[in-house]
Amino acid sequence: MNLLLIEPHEMTSPDVAVIVGRRAEHMRKILKVKVGDTIKAGVLNGLKGEGRINDINESHVEVGLDLTVSPPAPLPLNLVIAMQRPQTFKKVLQCAGAMGVKNIYAVHCNKVEKSYWDSPLLANEAYCEHLLLGLEQSGDTVMPEVHFERRFKPFVEEVLPEIAVGSTALVAHPVGSKVCPYAVDGPVTLCVGPEGGFTEYEVEKIAEAGCEPVTIGDRILRTEFALAALFGRLFV
Amino acid sequence: MNLLLIEPHEMTSPDVAVIVGRRAEHMRKILKVKVGDTIKAGVLNGLKGEGRINDINESHVEVGLDLTVSPPAPLPLNLVIAMQRPQTFKKVLQCAGAMGVKNIYAVHCNKVEKSYWDSPLLANEAYCEHLLLGLEQSGDTVMPEVHFERRFKPFVEEVLPEIAVGSTALVAHPVGSKVCPYAVDGPVTLCVGPEGGFTEYEVEKIAEAGCEPVTIGDRILRTEFALAALFGRLFV
Repeated sequence: MNLLLIEPHEMTSPDVAVIVGRRAEHMRKILKVKVGDTIKAGVLNGLKGEGRINDINESHVEVGLDLTVSPPAPLPLNLVIAMQRPQTFKKVLQCAGAMGVKNIYAVHCNKVEKSYWDSPLLANEAYCEHLLLGLEQSGDTVMPEVHFERRFKPFVEEVLPEIAVGSTALVAHPVGSKVCPYAVDGPVTLCVGPEGGFTEYEVEKIAEAGCEPVTIGDRILRTEFALAALFGRLFV
Repeated sequence: MNLLLIEPHEMTSPDVAVIVGRRAEHMRKILKVKVGDTIKAGVLNGLKGEGRINDINESHVEVGLDLTVSPPAPLPLNLVIAMQRPQTFKKVLQCAGAMGVKNIYAVHCNKVEKSYWDSPLLANEAYCEHLLLGLEQSGDTVMPEVHFERRFKPFVEEVLPEIAVGSTALVAHPVGSKVCPYAVDGPVTLCVGPEGGFTEYEVEKIAEAGCEPVTIGDRILRTEFALAALFGRLFV
């Protein structure tokens, strides 16, 4: 936790917040804060800056806030990613959250198991916790939006062309593709497949929507590592 | 497991192997192989190709081998990385193993907790399991070498200059550094710090050994994601 991320409802006045639960415990047990210490803090979807520990007890930590700094610039990326098994999707959200991705489209396709859509991770916005972990890690305050697209064809025919237009639009696909570009100027749309890859039909449909197939090599990487490698390559 | 990686002692003849334990269970329960099925297989530090399931029972799986393909090219990288907490070091090894890193120097420095060196992960080469998981993931057979360097100063003064010479030598350091290059030609030496970063003294010593400080941005990333991002940027 490199940033204490505060939700607006935790503010008891414009410059005081009362924190309970996981983050309070982390401050007490891991950071071992004392009254008067300062830590990095920010308000969800707002400014960041310094928090001063006013009070600590078993149930909560009270923090006085001096927030004047804007969050880091968002990554100019629309991430279109096949829905992953829940354990992998958590890591994808943490990685994307930390990297500064603000628009994520989680999409059904052929090699996505139907059961992934019934995971408790998707119920009641439970997945948001993993985005928050990413923001806390990297020092960002701006919550990404996740769009769930349970039908491949309407998404790829109607939504994807509108997302891709005006951006460098790519689909990561190892087979017979050109090498993924480096340090792209301007916005990027990046499509990433499921564990077993997109089918040839799906890659064709995605290409028809304006996305060029590109590769970062023959090695089969875990989804979260492939994502991080692509982000490191595409952006400055 | 995208590749069944066989150790030489599991070969009962030049083209037959008998597999027990985790990989046998994975073949039975996850891949649900049947006699006659073929899977991708390779011998540790040797060739890869096709394995044909000859026999399956509760205790083992017998595989007939037809291995004619060379493993993928290694990443031309010496990775120098501060020793990490065990859970993170496991992910670093899996990521580096999958990416094709063959030389890893795990180094002590100021912000590395002494206890990390006493982890069971480092005893009896237990860490090798995580390198194997990386190789199995990416379809490689060649085991990386890990060098443990428990004293920073002798390493950085005597060993690092010899590793760095003739390569593009870099140290990842967010503060006031130039932007990390893309698609470097030829061998690379890359130094990556501990969770809290290298100290200024350490960065100076590493720079004296020939490594230039570079950054991939202000965001504080988890070590394994920072590594994957650097690999994706530095290599084709």
